[in-house]
Amino acid sequence: MRTGIATVCLSGTLKEKMQACAIAGFDGIEIFEQDLVTSSLSPEDVRKMAADLGLGLDLYQPFRDFDSVPENILRENLRRADTKFKLMSRLGMDTILVCTNVGTATIDDDELRAEQLGRLAELAENHGVKVAYEALAWGKYVSDYEHAHRLVDAVDHPNLGTCLDSFHILSRDWDTAPIEAIKPEKIFFVQVADAPKLAMDVLSWSRHYRVFPGEGQFELAKFMGHVARAGYSGPVSLEIFNDVFRQSDVERTAVDAMRSLIWLEEQSAKWLDANGDVPDNAANRRRYPMELATLPKVAEPAGFNFAEVKTDEPAQLETLLGRLGFEFDGRHRTKDVQLWSMGQARVIINEQAPSHSEPAIAALGFDVDSPVIASARAQQLKAPVVPRKVQADEEVFQGIAAPDSTEIFLCQGSPDGTAAWTSEFGQSREFGEGLEHPSSETQAVIDHVNLAQPWQHFDEAVLFYTSALALEPQPFAEVPSPSGLVRSQVMQTADRAVRLVLNLAPVIQQEPGRQGVGQRKSYQEHIAFAVDDLVATARAAKGRGLEFLQIPANYYEDLDARFALDPVFLSTLKELNLLYDRDANGEFLHFYTATVGSVFFEMVERRGNYDGYGAPNAPVRHAVQYDSLHAQNLHR
Amino acid sequence: MRTGIATVCLSGTLKEKMQACAIAGFDGIEIFEQDLVTSSLSPEDVRKMAADLGLGLDLYQPFRDFDSVPENILRENLRRADTKFKLMSRLGMDTILVCTNVGTATIDDDELRAEQLGRLAELAENHGVKVAYEALAWGKYVSDYEHAHRLVDAVDHPNLGTCLDSFHILSRDWDTAPIEAIKPEKIFFVQVADAPKLAMDVLSWSRHYRVFPGEGQFELAKFMGHVARAGYSGPVSLEIFNDVFRQSDVERTAVDAMRSLIWLEEQSAKWLDANGDVPDNAANRRRYPMELATLPKVAEPAGFNFAEVKTDEPAQLETLLGRLGFEFDGRHRTKDVQLWSMGQARVIINEQAPSHSEPAIAALGFDVDSPVIASARAQQLKAPVVPRKVQADEEVFQGIAAPDSTEIFLCQGSPDGTAAWTSEFGQSREFGEGLEHPSSETQAVIDHVNLAQPWQHFDEAVLFYTSALALEPQPFAEVPSPSGLVRSQVMQTADRAVRLVLNLAPVIQQEPGRQGVGQRKSYQEHIAFAVDDLVATARAAKGRGLEFLQIPANYYEDLDARFALDPVFLSTLKELNLLYDRDANGEFLHFYTATVGSVFFEMVERRGNYDGYGAPNAPVRHAVQYDSLHAQNLHR
Repeated sequence: MRTGIATVCLSGTLKEKMQACAIAGFDGIEIFEQDLVTSSLSPEDVRKMAADLGLGLDLYQPFRDFDSVPENILRENLRRADTKFKLMSRLGMDTILVCTNVGTATIDDDELRAEQLGRLAELAENHGVKVAYEALAWGKYVSDYEHAHRLVDAVDHPNLGTCLDSFHILSRDWDTAPIEAIKPEKIFFVQVADAPKLAMDVLSWSRHYRVFPGEGQFELAKFMGHVARAGYSGPVSLEIFNDVFRQSDVERTAVDAMRSLIWLEEQSAKWLDANGDVPDNAANRRRYPMELATLPKVAEPAGFNFAEVKTDEPAQLETLLGRLGFEFDGRHRTKDVQLWSMGQARVIINEQAPSHSEPAIAALGFDVDSPVIASARAQQLKAPVVPRKVQADEEVFQGIAAPDSTEIFLCQGSPDGTAAWTSEFGQSREFGEGLEHPSSETQAVIDHVNLAQPWQHFDEAVLFYTSALALEPQPFAEVPSPSGLVRSQVMQTADRAVRLVLNLAPVIQQEPGRQGVGQRKSYQEHIAFAVDDLVATARAAKGRGLEFLQIPANYYEDLDARFALDPVFLSTLKELNLLYDRDANGEFLHFYTATVGSVFFEMVERRGNYDGYGAPNAPVRHAVQYDSLHAQNLHR
Repeated sequence: MRTGIATVCLSGTLKEKMQACAIAGFDGIEIFEQDLVTSSLSPEDVRKMAADLGLGLDLYQPFRDFDSVPENILRENLRRADTKFKLMSRLGMDTILVCTNVGTATIDDDELRAEQLGRLAELAENHGVKVAYEALAWGKYVSDYEHAHRLVDAVDHPNLGTCLDSFHILSRDWDTAPIEAIKPEKIFFVQVADAPKLAMDVLSWSRHYRVFPGEGQFELAKFMGHVARAGYSGPVSLEIFNDVFRQSDVERTAVDAMRSLIWLEEQSAKWLDANGDVPDNAANRRRYPMELATLPKVAEPAGFNFAEVKTDEPAQLETLLGRLGFEFDGRHRTKDVQLWSMGQARVIINEQAPSHSEPAIAALGFDVDSPVIASARAQQLKAPVVPRKVQADEEVFQGIAAPDSTEIFLCQGSPDGTAAWTSEFGQSREFGEGLEHPSSETQAVIDHVNLAQPWQHFDEAVLFYTSALALEPQPFAEVPSPSGLVRSQVMQTADRAVRLVLNLAPVIQQEPGRQGVGQRKSYQEHIAFAVDDLVATARAAKGRGLEFLQIPANYYEDLDARFALDPVFLSTLKELNLLYDRDANGEFLHFYTATVGSVFFEMVERRGNYDGYGAPNAPVRHAVQYDSLHAQNLHR
């Protein structure tokens, strides 16, 4: 599949954009006119730079408001087109996007339109240019791709074809199956964009909220399957108008974009397979001119292998884990790293951190069928590899960096949930004074991990976990907090063995001169462990002196108002600072620890088939954490 | 008018919110339940704190999903209500908001609803509580305020009334005139919210995009006029769900909120005047129980008096102004301040700046009828006063701080556009070597000023200039730039003597390790001057060696493609780096200077009745400025 991207997707100047596209590995680009008009590069410079970078200049766009106009305006439009065709010749480009008229169309007559498009095609022919006519979803008279194609058919000129843009088609819920009926030589270009399903006017939706494939909710694999079946083999190019991408680092965004196309290519091939095209023989897919490359296969991870917290000041963390009921399993034989566990929940404290590093979640290990295959897949998806020093006799972890810089390690899972690498730990260590060694009988697993995402990499993270780890994004939630709404996106496996919560946290802005200004730490992250008996776990932890997050009394009154709980149960919840939720499928009990650095822990018990995360309780946690952070800052 | 605000409008904890509301001067607040549930303050603490702060606790909210349910759910709902009524008694509160059912309603029967609401009213009566029933715009069966009122009427119980919320009424375009028919004793509460007119689903619109009155597009003065005529005299309370306000400094937002109510009060009184209620006698307005306080009157400013740039390193700025054609009018007799002028365009260079302050726009002077009255008005609208030292014989400026900290000075205008204070300047100064003294014959005025706004104070700025200076907000535009979309809001007087452009600039995020990281300055601002003959002005400036912003050749090719310009004219534009725009009303020529510090200048010529700002050219300016800033950073 020939990959492309429109320059309008990216931030920066035309030069910066072109360089980033080459680094990300795109075959070609679409030149968005404004990027050329505002550039100090001459058309000849652009042509040379593209050649040097190995980038095709696949589409010049957009040419607006051409057809359905009176003759005097049409002549003016032909003159305008003539100047652009000449410019394209200097650029060495041969295809231009002409979109259906939005602004100046006054005559709704398909015959006239065909006649006008025919004149444009003739002019284009004189310049060796091909016109790709695209139906905008909000086109005044032509807004449907089949209508645009009928006009192209009626004109029947070799220099006039159509451009199919997934946004304009899927935003209007048009059926994509009829794409297969279009003759391949009449499809001059294909643009793909994904989007979240939003109930708003389609123009604003299109101009601000498009995302890369895999970051939204459109059925793009199906769209691409129909395009492949139509026999198209030209560029598949991203055209994404997104307010955040326009502000983000150009190279990062270009890589995110490339990842989305690589993933879409695989998904399209899978859709074809699943829809009867190539029952048992992948090679047969080649009967379509579009070659769809495959990726190393990935299955959902079977579970968390470990979570790692990094700090060079581990004392508070050790106390917290110990009081929570974790057992100290020793130090690594060669590295400055500790292992703590409770049943199959393993937490690594990595002390190889810069000086005065407060505890922060640094890495997650996932159990996969084959770490090598999973790593190969991630690397083909442009995930940066994380180097980790190992000795000859130690297990080699395949590591990649997630968009928020969390290190993701792909581990060999085991049927019984144990991990072979733990044998590398063993050097004994003295417990701190007064810390009772907890019983190791409590069974626990990592239930979920909650990671804060920088706002400019939130969509990128969704695609990363979708494509590289086969996690499935769930509908997102918004949780109120004292510093603003927190956007919360759950990514999980179908069997719920892995649950990851990505939070896009607001940044509160305080005025200079107010107390605590600039001292607020970044958003907190946490690791949640599931146990069978939360009340017993909490009571034991309380006995060991654990510092619980203190839940306000008002919460329990409201809980009672909502659920009419048994008074004894309610007083147990209150005594132990437990939170509670219930839905039609089951119940959820949980508690939080105090925070050290930017990390805290959660303990949960899932009763019945409760599948959530106690979302109604999240605002309470945020408020109490905000309060204690504020109090800390005031006392500094 | 009794002023109120719901705690959900603000960031922070309940305690922080209450304190901020008291400081801003609100009469009362609405307790949003979640703020209480997540608070460590007991209901008794809240009651005492409110009393100490002099804040009424006017409304407890929301109580959801009560009516239109089967009997078993209704009993559960009554139990739930009972716990909340008891809680309210501990809080010392007497009014609760019950909104129409969205989630659990299954029976669409007004008789049943009335019966169920009657039972709630009886229960409320036992607790001394009043129930304010509100139609949500997205209520399942009841979404219209008149429908809610009919139900209240049918129940006819002293403890059941209605709550009118401007958002739920105006978002659906309901007619507001029938409000007058509601008996005042049946209106238990009034909530006001403004909003931009957005074409999106009403729930998302409501939950994220509400703004304070005067910051949106709803006809709130009319709404309030009908409420006053109905005889209502209770609280008028803000209930604004806004993603930005939730993240902004709580005290700043509370003041912004208070300003919006003070302004709305005046606008409501004006609406009543304009609609025949009190033809010539403001005192008559008192026949309505709601007293609407008046503000010192303000007229639109007659023009810019001056613009001030602050820096302790003025050399580059002096060169730029001199080459642009400005005349040096001397230094102030007592302050370290220079005056430069071109006709009636006056620029002050204030050197009383901290050391190594790069030039930045610091103040604007506006000509008003009466500086004292305008200042009194601004201060009643909670604008912070700016102190400025003056000697006994100098003109005293009335100064206030705009939300972005620009100092706004209210000056006595003069019919001929001169300014008396200029006589305080005169001490001579040597021109720099090689700088030719420009001719003083060019007539110029300040055409517009473009100020960058911090994202968290953008709406606040719109209300500030609307309410304190009587500028009128125009529909906003979005301009692409290499670092993202720039939201651009024009505020102007009807006669265009004052034009102010507020730009909400994106912050580009670069990855660590990339070139230029962290060195980008904040967004640039500029002052634009209008002259009669731009070509002559530009040519003279070029002769003096002015550093123009260099416009790319591609721009002129595109200009020609769009407008088919006379070749001689086009080559003049190109030679002098002039930009051009045209619309049905006239033509616009302009050029930009290079930037010093965060300031640059623009020269414009308006031909015919051209009323814009050359918006199609703004992306070119952004791109070239981005490029030169980037080049500067790379060379550091």
